[in-house]
Amino acid sequence: MEYALETVRRGTIALGLKGVDGVILAVEERTRKLQTPTLSQKIFQVDDHVGVAAAGYVPDARVLVDKARVFSQTNHLLYDESVDVESVTKYLGDLTQEFTQYAGVRPFGVSLIIAGVDRRGSSVFFVDPSGSYLQNEAVSIGAGSDQVTQFLENNFSSSTSLQDLSVLAVKSIYLVSEDKVGVSHIRMATIDNKTKKLRRYTEEEVAKFASIAKEKFNVP
Amino acid sequence: MEYALETVRRGTIALGLKGVDGVILAVEERTRKLQTPTLSQKIFQVDDHVGVAAAGYVPDARVLVDKARVFSQTNHLLYDESVDVESVTKYLGDLTQEFTQYAGVRPFGVSLIIAGVDRRGSSVFFVDPSGSYLQNEAVSIGAGSDQVTQFLENNFSSSTSLQDLSVLAVKSIYLVSEDKVGVSHIRMATIDNKTKKLRRYTEEEVAKFASIAKEKFNVP
Amino acid sequence: MEYALETVRRGTIALGLKGVDGVILAVEERTRKLQTPTLSQKIFQVDDHVGVAAAGYVPDARVLVDKARVFSQTNHLLYDESVDVESVTKYLGDLTQEFTQYAGVRPFGVSLIIAGVDRRGSSVFFVDPSGSYLQNEAVSIGAGSDQVTQFLENNFSSSTSLQDLSVLAVKSIYLVSEDKVGVSHIRMATIDNKTKKLRRYTEEEVAKFASIAKEKFNVP
Amino acid sequence: MEYALETVRRGTIALGLKGVDGVILAVEERTRKLQTPTLSQKIFQVDDHVGVAAAGYVPDARVLVDKARVFSQTNHLLYDESVDVESVTKYLGDLTQEFTQYAGVRPFGVSLIIAGVDRRGSSVFFVDPSGSYLQNEAVSIGAGSDQVTQFLENNFSSSTSLQDLSVLAVKSIYLVSEDKVGVSHIRMATIDNKTKKLRRYTEEEVAKFASIAKEKFNVP
Amino acid sequence: MEYALETVRRGTIALGLKGVDGVILAVEERTRKLQTPTLSQKIFQVDDHVGVAAAGYVPDARVLVDKARVFSQTNHLLYDESVDVESVTKYLGDLTQEFTQYAGVRPFGVSLIIAGVDRRGSSVFFVDPSGSYLQNEAVSIGAGSDQVTQFLENNFSSSTSLQDLSVLAVKSIYLVSEDKVGVSHIRMATIDNKTKKLRRYTEEEVAKFASIAKEKFNVP
Amino acid sequence: MEYALETVRRGTIALGLKGVDGVILAVEERTRKLQTPTLSQKIFQVDDHVGVAAAGYVPDARVLVDKARVFSQTNHLLYDESVDVESVTKYLGDLTQEFTQYAGVRPFGVSLIIAGVDRRGSSVFFVDPSGSYLQNEAVSIGAGSDQVTQFLENNFSSSTSLQDLSVLAVKSIYLVSEDKVGVSHIRMATIDNKTKKLRRYTEEEVAKFASIAKEKFNVP
Amino acid sequence: MEYALETVRRGTIALGLKGVDGVILAVEERTRKLQTPTLSQKIFQVDDHVGVAAAGYVPDARVLVDKARVFSQTNHLLYDESVDVESVTKYLGDLTQEFTQYAGVRPFGVSLIIAGVDRRGSSVFFVDPSGSYLQNEAVSIGAGSDQVTQFLENNFSSSTSLQDLSVLAVKSIYLVSEDKVGVSHIRMATIDNKTKKLRRYTEEEVAKFASIAKEKFNVP
Repeated sequence: MEYALETVRRGTIALGLKGVDGVILAVEERTRKLQTPTLSQKIFQVDDHVGVAAAGYVPDARVLVDKARVFSQTNHLLYDESVDVESVTKYLGDLTQEFTQYAGVRPFGVSLIIAGVDRRGSSVFFVDPSGSYLQNEAVSIGAGSDQVTQFLENNFSSSTSLQDLSVLAVKSIYLVSEDKVGVSHIRMATIDNKTKKLRRYTEEEVAKFASIAKEKFNVP
Repeated sequence: MEYALETVRRGTIALGLKGVDGVILAVEERTRKLQTPTLSQKIFQVDDHVGVAAAGYVPDARVLVDKARVFSQTNHLLYDESVDVESVTKYLGDLTQEFTQYAGVRPFGVSLIIAGVDRRGSSVFFVDPSGSYLQNEAVSIGAGSDQVTQFLENNFSSSTSLQDLSVLAVKSIYLVSEDKVGVSHIRMATIDNKTKKLRRYTEEEVAKFASIAKEKFNVP
Repeated sequence: MEYALETVRRGTIALGLKGVDGVILAVEERTRKLQTPTLSQKIFQVDDHVGVAAAGYVPDARVLVDKARVFSQTNHLLYDESVDVESVTKYLGDLTQEFTQYAGVRPFGVSLIIAGVDRRGSSVFFVDPSGSYLQNEAVSIGAGSDQVTQFLENNFSSSTSLQDLSVLAVKSIYLVSEDKVGVSHIRMATIDNKTKKLRRYTEEEVAKFASIAKEKFNVP
Repeated sequence: MEYALETVRRGTIALGLKGVDGVILAVEERTRKLQTPTLSQKIFQVDDHVGVAAAGYVPDARVLVDKARVFSQTNHLLYDESVDVESVTKYLGDLTQEFTQYAGVRPFGVSLIIAGVDRRGSSVFFVDPSGSYLQNEAVSIGAGSDQVTQFLENNFSSSTSLQDLSVLAVKSIYLVSEDKVGVSHIRMATIDNKTKKLRRYTEEEVAKFASIAKEKFNVP
Repeated sequence: MEYALETVRRGTIALGLKGVDGVILAVEERTRKLQTPTLSQKIFQVDDHVGVAAAGYVPDARVLVDKARVFSQTNHLLYDESVDVESVTKYLGDLTQEFTQYAGVRPFGVSLIIAGVDRRGSSVFFVDPSGSYLQNEAVSIGAGSDQVTQFLENNFSSSTSLQDLSVLAVKSIYLVSEDKVGVSHIRMATIDNKTKKLRRYTEEEVAKFASIAKEKFNVP
Repeated sequence: MEYALETVRRGTIALGLKGVDGVILAVEERTRKLQTPTLSQKIFQVDDHVGVAAAGYVPDARVLVDKARVFSQTNHLLYDESVDVESVTKYLGDLTQEFTQYAGVRPFGVSLIIAGVDRRGSSVFFVDPSGSYLQNEAVSIGAGSDQVTQFLENNFSSSTSLQDLSVLAVKSIYLVSEDKVGVSHIRMATIDNKTKKLRRYTEEEVAKFASIAKEKFNVP
Repeated sequence: MEYALETVRRGTIALGLKGVDGVILAVEERTRKLQTPTLSQKIFQVDDHVGVAAAGYVPDARVLVDKARVFSQTNHLLYDESVDVESVTKYLGDLTQEFTQYAGVRPFGVSLIIAGVDRRGSSVFFVDPSGSYLQNEAVSIGAGSDQVTQFLENNFSSSTSLQDLSVLAVKSIYLVSEDKVGVSHIRMATIDNKTKKLRRYTEEEVAKFASIAKEKFNVP
């Protein structure tokens, strides 16, 4: 268990923020030269209206997300309606707890931020390797999350627009990342309250938020 | 086993009190800034007339409560009547004992207070990780429970009204909590003998009891 | 195994006595303030005519007694007659032995006194965590049982009436209990040869025996 | 395995003797005061014509004897004739061997003397925790068996009558028992060649053999 | 896990490169004298359009490739179309992750480069023993991969033709191999965007690239 | 495994010899006084034409021989002909190997000599705890087998008659046994080429060979 | 695993050689006096056209060969044609790999040389305990294989006739064997390209090759 938590603490930063008109997921993903710029390895789409950002052991995140996708689809089939974000979270928390209690398996080495928009509006949750989960308006996990949390406590407000949240998210990542310029290491996605659809930001969009962030927070 | 008991001893305080007109469950739940104020993570509703308060490892409490809910629903289906509070308690005790005796699982790292009102009236029980359970008029579990128990031994009477019990519960939590002001870290629920329905207190209600508590116990 | 036996040796005292007109079960049960005075946690009814007193790990006793109840009911169904006390004892001894021989489980951490009245008359047995069982006219288990046994060897006679046995039992518990006054920590039950029904003593009855005991044995 | 053999070596003495007109089983059973004088815990009847005496861990003996009884009954049902004493022995030896070879169980901590009269006449066998078995005319197992064996080598003859064997058995037990007087700690059973039925000796019978033994062997 | 990663780090070098008109796989395979020149042990064909190059424990690679082949064939049968290269990669990553989480198995001691051409064009992935996978334009695994990666960062461009990539691959292997001459220790395969078929290079082809490499990079 | 081989090395000597007109099995079996002279515990009949002699842990030998008997009977049923001696040997070797490779069991602690006469004539094999088996003209196993083997190398010839082999076998046992006189500790059996039936020697026969042996080898 | 490889390194030498007109298998088998000269324990026939030579733990080789025989027969039944030598090798390699990856079994402690003639001509492979396999023109395994390999590198040519290969094989064994004269410790088999049938050499044939070997390599 301690090992699983340590794996999370060493992972690169991931954030989930909830604003007036939707939610934002953001992660740092260090890419090496020669790596193909592809979809994020740390932001996953569980359903149209639910996304996940991970910190820790990525293959474990993938396994959990795959199970969450099946859970979500099953909900569609059984009840003919979209799954609640909290239901997905509880499902992931129970699954994670199970892997701490039974012999023959190891706990999952990953924490997940689950963000989405359902009939109750937008919400952001996170689950840790023990299976604990909490609902937050803003949450960060991974290496540097203490520093980011403090920054968010000072700057975040739930009445912020998605655009301003995006700027805040980019700034948060710059805070703890080794790379203080460029945005190729920043991946973001959003789900707005109207469309209820997850949309990944293009590199251009992220770059735009980054330039605003630099102005706003007076980065040298 | 020792590890499970230690987990409970380190958990934040939880209380169950039985008065003349019903029962009270109260827990301290430290919330961080940015956390969404939601339902309690440590007070669970098992059935209309049965609630649970937990100290220790919360994901384990969740798993046990989920099983208690199924047990309770099954009782409705089989016997067409509400399950007894003691039956729920014995079920949880037997389940917990099983996890101490068989290899391949670890004991549950949580103690639970089960409170409710059934045809025999109101009652408060608690179960520990060994599977032992007892019926009490007032019980507290978690870090600081010794101090709270002593306080209750001096101040509690089973002939107290729910309102006075609520004041006592708030005071008990202030006794051992780091936060001596505010009530955002105090969650409470009650089941009164008439309605036999669990009802969670609003933050305003808790605040009211807190201000009475401060007067009554002469808090500086 | 050693651990299981140690658990028994540390348990509070339990006694079983056989007299001319029936059997007595008695246990010490320390109750804390605020605990609800309820049924004994250490004297169990297996069937109308069979009772059990336990010393050691109470949740294990509960599990064993539940199994003994099913065994007893099954006997009613299969043979249309009440189960013999020795059969219940052998069943519990075999079950307990099994948990010492197979991997994946731990031995039961409890010793049981099985007392009852069947077609052969009254009898008292006890089973230990190894699965050994013996028939006795008077037996005590748990912390202080050596001292109590010596006391009984000097004072017990199988030709004693139930009432005198009850006095002896109360005195035995006072011998080794920290509480030398009051009877709230003493629980007793009896099965007499005529009714063949287990009956729990009220606190008043126990108090009566206690006052006789104090006179008879000249307690200061 | 070593542990199982040690358990046997520490058990109280048990003997099996074969004479001209039948076999004798004898054991020492230390009874505490207050213990009910009942059937022996160490001499078991497997079938009309087959008895077992045990040294070591009694609950294990009970389990083995229960299985031998089923084996014997099955033989009656399948072949409509009484089981051979050697077949019972081989069955017990094979069962015991199995518990030494497979993981997940511990070896049986008991040695058994199997004595009986079948169509081939009378015979005495013994099985140890390894599953080894041998046929003997006289055998003793448990603490002090070396001394008893030496005594028997000097005094036993297979042409002895059952009565003289009984005297020899009582003397053997006195040799190694702490109790040099009284017979309440000596239990005996016999199967004679004519009736082929196991019969337990009464305390009076044992006392008679004891007084002859004391005369004959000139006990002070 | 550490052991599995170490096995990979000690394996001989393997490369995957993606150019304008297809992909290249190249491995070093030290052959001893007397060994029959056969197909590569480290470049595998999974499907017509998908190849795998391995570094680490070859039997594990074989097992994984066999499973990938079945996966690929099943895809043909179920959907009547060729499997995507990323699907094969994810399948291998999930399989590898599973072997890190469940008891009773050891993690696979091998990293794999998966290269192919599907309806989305050409792509190169790699999977490590943890189940992590990434998409790259150029990737090398095994002993010396750091040095080769640096070389590729300086010399590789995704707009390179297959022929120039082949020269680069040969040069890469010479960089870290003990054998700086000859090509019997170099095995290569290619899948071009037009044919979408894996084709292994003959020793003559490799020799041709080697001689160009020596000229181009001015090898003494 | 080492433990199993050590168990064999400590067992009493067993021999198998092949002569012109059949095979001989011989073992030393130390019997204590009072033991009933019965069939050998170490020479087993597998089928009419196949015998086994064991050194090591006798209960394991018994289990293996029982399985060989079933194997042999199954062969009769399936093919309507007697099983080959080598087939029995291979079966026992494969069984023994299996117990060295799988967890949850311990290796068999016994070596076996398998001797018999089948359609190919007479043959002698032996199997050790690893599952290795060899065909020999003369073989000895157990404590002292090195000394006996040397003696046999000097004195044995495959053209010897069964009678002379028997003398050689007795002498071999005397060589390493503590008992240099008497034959109660020597058990022998033979299968001659004509009858193809195993026949155990009577004590008188063994005594006859012993007296010849003493003359022939000039024992003082 | 290390233990399995060590077992192979300590085994006596085994060779596989491929010439112009077929393949040769040769092993050293130390036989003790009194051992019956029988078929080799280390050269196995898998099918008419496929043989195996083993170094290491012989019972494991036997188990693997038995499985290879079933595999080969199944191929006949399913496809109505002889199995390829490489298919047998891959099957043995996969089986061996499996025993390194799953708990509850130990790796096979043996290396195998698989030689045969199929529709593609003759071939020689070998498999080690890790499941790795390679195709060679000449290969030796077991104690002394380094020395033999060096000898073969200097003297072997794939254009050699079977007869000259046989001489080379005998010489190779003399190189590392303690027995420099006689051929009773040398076992050989051949499969020629025409008959495609495995044939074991008689002792006379081996002796002939030995005398040529001594001349040719000038052995003193």
